Amino acid sequence: MKKFAVVLSGCGVYDGAEIHEAVLTMFAIASNGATYEIFAPDIDQHHVVNHLTGTEMDETRNVLIESARIARGKIKPLGEFSGKEFDAIIFPGGFGAAKNLSSFAFDGSNCWVNSDIEAVIREMVSLGKPIGALCISPVILAKILGDVELTIGDDAGTISAIEEMGATHKATTHGEVVVDKAKKVVTTPCYMLDATITQIGEGANNVVKAMLEMM
Amino acid sequence: MKKFAVVLSGCGVYDGAEIHEAVLTMFAIASNGATYEIFAPDIDQHHVVNHLTGTEMDETRNVLIESARIARGKIKPLGEFSGKEFDAIIFPGGFGAAKNLSSFAFDGSNCWVNSDIEAVIREMVSLGKPIGALCISPVILAKILGDVELTIGDDAGTISAIEEMGATHKATTHGEVVVDKAKKVVTTPCYMLDATITQIGEGANNVVKAMLEMM
Repeated sequence: MKKFAVVLSGCGVYDGAEIHEAVLTMFAIASNGATYEIFAPDIDQHHVVNHLTGTEMDETRNVLIESARIARGKIKPLGEFSGKEFDAIIFPGGFGAAKNLSSFAFDGSNCWVNSDIEAVIREMVSLGKPIGALCISPVILAKILGDVELTIGDDAGTISAIEEMGATHKATTHGEVVVDKAKKVVTTPCYMLDATITQIGEGANNVVKAMLEMM
Repeated sequence: MKKFAVVLSGCGVYDGAEIHEAVLTMFAIASNGATYEIFAPDIDQHHVVNHLTGTEMDETRNVLIESARIARGKIKPLGEFSGKEFDAIIFPGGFGAAKNLSSFAFDGSNCWVNSDIEAVIREMVSLGKPIGALCISPVILAKILGDVELTIGDDAGTISAIEEMGATHKATTHGEVVVDKAKKVVTTPCYMLDATITQIGEGANNVVKAMLEMM
């Protein structure tokens, strides 16, 4: 049975992992006969956003602890990840990818990427194993890998930033995936477009299927 | 297009709505060609649980604000619910149903139910519209409706408590639903059993389909 690592960045679209993308990624992996373990970095979130009002809250929350809500407690700190134990790694989206796993939301193409995130991506590349990314998460792959073909939906500013980091962008619509066969990178836009929850399920399923075909 | 109200109880299995059940309920509604709006009561959570360790955290969180994470901000306080605007109402599970929407986790069959929750259930019953409940949420229907047929999985203590409240229990396995045709109540066990995420999707889908057949 093929085994995915799912990497989360918190719990909630505005300051963490996008919950629909995270759950429907796990659902797609299991529905396609594979299995998964969940990881997140043990770091504080950049900030906490009240998802009802959109305003910042005067709180501190931890990415690993909040991600554990989506994982029902079955989650490990990213430092314990070993690429040898997995056939693939996948990153659901949400602002957490651009605020906690990297600084893309604030620094664009000049962003940093969390060192543990960079390490696991470089390890999977060196092992020749597929990497999947949904929604805004492909920006991390653009920063680390540079010359990679991927999709970020249709937002002009984000497309420019990705190209500044050396990536080649392909515009996509709902559920479509872009596969970079050489780098084994699979991406889909999800909520980077104005999508429905069924379109998120379709995108997650198509990414997982394309990744399984490369294993 | 048939319209469901989805009622959440927070964001995370141990102190709020079970996230997989919530997302896969929304996914099932949309996949079956219906639409939904999301509601939650504007009340503090009973407590906040660290989902990594299972221990209580010294924090206060609001059920509506945390539920908004699952809803991507598109959520209304339960006080604004009007049964005339909906064809059905559905309650995903999670300890939030037994800690925030009611006190079942602490008081068993002697529990209270939040007054807004009781009001919306009684309104839907009076309008003859279907009510769905997943996982532990059926305990709320047992408390309010008394003489109703439902399932809570296979936990002996919970079954006893439901029967003490006047309900008739039917044991079920993964994905199965119990339909009380007279009361228009549809229930499924979900994570009250040791289930996989695909079994949660199956249960949510079967509840939604059975509810649609009664509209």
